[in-house]
Amino acid sequence: MTVTSDMAITLDGYIAGPNVSLDNPGGDGAEPIFEWIHTLASWRQRQGMTGGEENRDSELIREWFDATGAVVMGRTMYDLGEEFWGDNPPFKTPVFVLTHRPRPTLVKEGGTTFTFVTDGIHSALDQAKAAAGDRNVDIAGGADTVQQYLREGLIDELQLHVVPALLGAGLRLFDGIGAEQRNLEAVGVVDTPLATHLKYRFVK
Amino acid sequence: MTVTSDMAITLDGYIAGPNVSLDNPGGDGAEPIFEWIHTLASWRQRQGMTGGEENRDSELIREWFDATGAVVMGRTMYDLGEEFWGDNPPFKTPVFVLTHRPRPTLVKEGGTTFTFVTDGIHSALDQAKAAAGDRNVDIAGGADTVQQYLREGLIDELQLHVVPALLGAGLRLFDGIGAEQRNLEAVGVVDTPLATHLKYRFVK
Repeated sequence: MTVTSDMAITLDGYIAGPNVSLDNPGGDGAEPIFEWIHTLASWRQRQGMTGGEENRDSELIREWFDATGAVVMGRTMYDLGEEFWGDNPPFKTPVFVLTHRPRPTLVKEGGTTFTFVTDGIHSALDQAKAAAGDRNVDIAGGADTVQQYLREGLIDELQLHVVPALLGAGLRLFDGIGAEQRNLEAVGVVDTPLATHLKYRFVK
Repeated sequence: MTVTSDMAITLDGYIAGPNVSLDNPGGDGAEPIFEWIHTLASWRQRQGMTGGEENRDSELIREWFDATGAVVMGRTMYDLGEEFWGDNPPFKTPVFVLTHRPRPTLVKEGGTTFTFVTDGIHSALDQAKAAAGDRNVDIAGGADTVQQYLREGLIDELQLHVVPALLGAGLRLFDGIGAEQRNLEAVGVVDTPLATHLKYRFVK
């Protein structure tokens, strides 16, 4: 059982631009972070779309989808994505949403369920682990949620898709994770014209 | 004539730890950022030392040394390094130091000169370009100096030696560079057990 977090990020460390809102879920200037993913066959397939490029990037994203058996996300990410994901969300697995407001579980088409967890990040992770079978649990975001799991040392593997852009402002992935040195081991680098994909494992 | 900046950096974007001072020039917990460089034959040779590893990392650092014909640095970096560098500093080229206090040029052994520039970053860069011949000008640091040149769009190539560690606090390379999107092109990735070396060129 591996707990992963897989994030697209600019070279200067931003996973979203400034001024994130329901109408602007990626924030200002966030196109370089996300638009390459939307060109990939594996991503399009997951969204119920056809076409797209079958390239190394697409393979990597497919591997990540296939390896993931449950997802944890923050309430803001859920709120920003809910309408876009529609009746058949791309997760196809149980999703555990961290929130303060209890809400009944939503059962969507295609295998996605949204379970709202009000008793903290450890509980959400435990539930996700139980649901994931022998596949991974992915901490999907947003930044604040990933940071909470990083602070507690609960993430085993980090995959960063580094896009070749500097944004200069926005939401940083690595912020408030605690002033404590953590050592990693690089377990793979894949470089393509779209992104540099860096995979790291935490050294315990 | 290419203007480069070549920095060792943690995965979370720090080029030094917190509490940098004359007695603690790398800041707290900065060992992962710098200690790998000190094991390399090319680095040791430049410091007038023998031994060290002849590996891909050492080659990369040697290529960077050899390609550099002049250096620009901030006053803080100069102050932190002055004693350590001694009578035969590792630069072996003209170095232009940004400062507010005029001071006569220092001529050291081995080809290093320190020229103190009081009329701004453009003047320092122009003087460095004139001194570099057909080699590169490297903006050596610290973070504040690199940020000033990034803000003005004066850097052509960025080489980051990403060390497999999260520091959680310290001096960020990418901070205050202006909320303006800049596109880069990845021109090379070299992955070794010591660091992931990412080279980018700014797309004008």
